[in-house]
Parts: sequence; C-alpha cells; structure tokens
Amino acid sequence: MRYKLTLSYDGTEFAGFQKQPNQRTVEGVLTHVVNKISKTDSTDPIKIFGAGRTDAGVHAMGQVIHFDMSNNMTETSMLKAFNSLLPLDIKIIKSEIVSDDFHARFDAKGKHYQYRLYLGNFMDPFKRNYVGHWKYSLDFNLIQQAIKNLEGEHDFSSFVAAGSIKKSNVRTIYSADVSFNKAESELIFDFTGNGFLYNMVRIMIAVLTEIGSRRRPFDDINKLFVLKDRQFARLTAPASGLYLKKVFY
Amino acid sequence: MRYKLTLSYDGTEFAGFQKQPNQRTVEGVLTHVVNKISKTDSTDPIKIFGAGRTDAGVHAMGQVIHFDMSNNMTETSMLKAFNSLLPLDIKIIKSEIVSDDFHARFDAKGKHYQYRLYLGNFMDPFKRNYVGHWKYSLDFNLIQQAIKNLEGEHDFSSFVAAGSIKKSNVRTIYSADVSFNKAESELIFDFTGNGFLYNMVRIMIAVLTEIGSRRRPFDDINKLFVLKDRQFARLTAPASGLYLKKVFY
Repeated sequence: MRYKLTLSYDGTEFAGFQKQPNQRTVEGVLTHVVNKISKTDSTDPIKIFGAGRTDAGVHAMGQVIHFDMSNNMTETSMLKAFNSLLPLDIKIIKSEIVSDDFHARFDAKGKHYQYRLYLGNFMDPFKRNYVGHWKYSLDFNLIQQAIKNLEGEHDFSSFVAAGSIKKSNVRTIYSADVSFNKAESELIFDFTGNGFLYNMVRIMIAVLTEIGSRRRPFDDINKLFVLKDRQFARLTAPASGLYLKKVFY
Repeated sequence: MRYKLTLSYDGTEFAGFQKQPNQRTVEGVLTHVVNKISKTDSTDPIKIFGAGRTDAGVHAMGQVIHFDMSNNMTETSMLKAFNSLLPLDIKIIKSEIVSDDFHARFDAKGKHYQYRLYLGNFMDPFKRNYVGHWKYSLDFNLIQQAIKNLEGEHDFSSFVAAGSIKKSNVRTIYSADVSFNKAESELIFDFTGNGFLYNMVRIMIAVLTEIGSRRRPFDDINKLFVLKDRQFARLTAPASGLYLKKVFY
C-alpha cells in the first residue's frame, strides 16, 4: 500500500531534508521511523520520497512524502505510529492511503513558500531561528510594486545558487505577495509557483530587500531576468525565515 | 553610575541564570559583556545582580539586572552596546540609570510568571521549547476554580523543590488566573506574587493539571498547604513552558 504523509518540521536542528551520512536530516529520521514501524528486514529497507528538498534551517508546515508498506495499517494508525516515534521537531499532520502511481515529487503541480523577515533593531530572542532579519529602513510600497515583477513565467538563472543541476531554469510564479504584520514587526512574503530552484526564494528575498532599501534600482528584477547571471543577484537571505507551506497536487 | 537593565531571553540554550563553571548561563554571558563594554581590568571585574534566578530552559521577557559602571554612558548607548555584543538569544529591552541604592533583587516587590501548556495530541514542532505539554483530557472549569485556592498568603512548603534554603516558605500570591487560547490550543496560567520559591510555579502547574484531569481531588491544594510536604505534590511541569514576565519595584 502507498502512503502519502503531510508533515511539519522545525528545520533548526536538521542538516536539511536530504539524507547525508553522519548528519541529522529529515529524510534520515523519517526513513529510520518508517522501517521501525514496518519492522523491515535491514537488507531491503523502505525508502521514502519527498516532494522537495529543504535546506538546513529551512522549516516546513506542509512537506509531503510517500512510501510503500505492506503492513496494511489504516491512515490513522500510520499517523499515530509515526508521531509516537518521531522526535519533537517533526510531526505528521495528515496521513492518506493513495493509489500506487502517486509520486510525492513528480506529481507536485506547485508549491507555496513563505518567508518571514523581522524588522526590529535587534533580534527578538524568541524569533532568532524562525525569521530573517533586516534592521535598516525599507520602503514597503516599493517592495510591494517590485515583487510583482517576479510573477509569471521567467528564466530564473540569476536566482539560482551555484550547484543546481536542473536542465531548465524557467519557472512560473503564479503569485508573489508581501504583507506587513505590524504587531510582529515582520514582512511576510508569499510565493506560489510551479517549481522553485535551489535557493531561489532566498535570493529573491535578498534582491527585494535591497530594492526596498534603495541599494539597487527598482527595475533590477527585470534586468536580472535578462542577465541570467547569479553573480548580479548578490546576496541570499538566511534559511531561518523560510517555510515550505504547501505542496499542490 | 548604577544601571538597571530589563531583558528578554530564550532559556533553551542556557543552563539557567546563575553563573556556573563550564556552563553557558545568562549571568555568565551578561558578566562577560558588561566587562567587555567597560574594558574592566580583569583583576576587578564588574559583577551583575539579577532579580531572580531562572532554571535551565526557563524563559524571561522581563528579567531585571543591575550593575555599577564608571564609564558615564547614556542609557541608550548602554542598551545599544549590550545588544550589539549579546548573542541572539538574549536582548536588552530597556536601559535606565538608577540611584546608587537600587538593588535588582532586594528591591523587587513582586513578580509575574506565566506558564504556557499546550494541549495538542502531539507536540507542535515549533512550540517544543516554548510550552509544557498535556495530551489527556482536562476540565477547564475545574482548573479555573482550583487555581483560586492558590491566591493569598500561604505556606508553600509543599510547592518547593528539595534544595531550597529559604528561611520561610510563606509567600503571597496576589492573583492566579488561567485562560484558554483556542487558536493555539494552549492554557495560559498567570501568577503574580511577592515571591516565588524554587520550582514553585512548575509544581503548582503540575498539581493543577492533575486536578483538572481528575487524577487528584479538587481540594488537594488546601490539603497541600496543611501537609507542608513536597512529596505529596508529586510532579513538576517542564521548564520550557515557564516565562518570567515582569519584576515589580
């Protein structure tokens, strides 16, 4: 039977999603737990497949994985079994039995990422692992206008970290929005699109922040689409502010 | 000149407030920073005095300290100097120059502590260091009534951890309240009193939780005041849910 699980995790103490030797990763912890539940023979362990890889420090409130297990557990028992065995920084929020051809990664039609940028003079101790930080002045209206240049189909080659090995850097952003949470002194950025390249959201946030503080011209986003060169985008916002909120199927 | 600073800290990565050899403590970090700011001769370091000692994992949003420094810095410069040098999990929120006879501990007239108790079935990954957890059923009305028995002047000997060396265990709680934050699935407990003994709030929370889940009778608080024996109070709620919110002078 194929199971689809939706999960939430605090990325602070993970070296990212993808399994790596001698590192605590989300995939590593989930793989360990799924094989414990199914009491799998260690020569043929169950493998899990995630919708997308999040980096070290990046959080998720709607990551999706799938895997196959022959134990015939109900959706609810699977959820309870996982949550009883998982460490406190990962939690399964939904468990579903899906058809055998469902694939968490290949069937994903889109994703929603959110970025929280704290604007206080000094970091709030309770936010330090959960936001990015910008303490210089920002023109909110300027960011609100500039972010709209990211919407639509574009070649995001200027917005991808070195090391990405995708064939094409063309992606479509369906919506890009920013709002100001006054009570928390935070800018909240929301991006929904058909796919996101390595570090793409964090580079977009850094560019928008530089535009908002007049460190680079308003029309630089369109210029970056033409230049197709990551060097010109310059900075990358910290991982701590980034949340994978939802995967669409 | 004597300075009074009000500070906020995330207690997760501190071995409590009080300085200890080879441990990362709030007092240790603050002492290091104050001596760096004043460029003190290491043979005669500046000492800081805190209003109260918080345990490992306990948080503060209104801890108060005082110290003397001869550098003649303004209140604002002191705040900025501290916040530039402090690690991200401590932040000074207020800086004042006070009279030479002000004492952070001896002048404290009372304190306000808050406790956050999460009621979800499984821990929320983003709350794990910031709440206590109770996943069994609770009768909110019962707790709301029982908590009122804690108000007033009482001998809290049943509510003090072994190891306390206070002469008297009589304290006055001016107000003890509980509210339910439905959106967060949390019970919020607030205690204001003239002083709190070692682990007192955490033991009171454990007793209230047991009363609310009918694991002990409603009138056990009055019985504990009479018994004056910590063994009968049984449990201690985890440090992660506790916040020193304010010190009154």
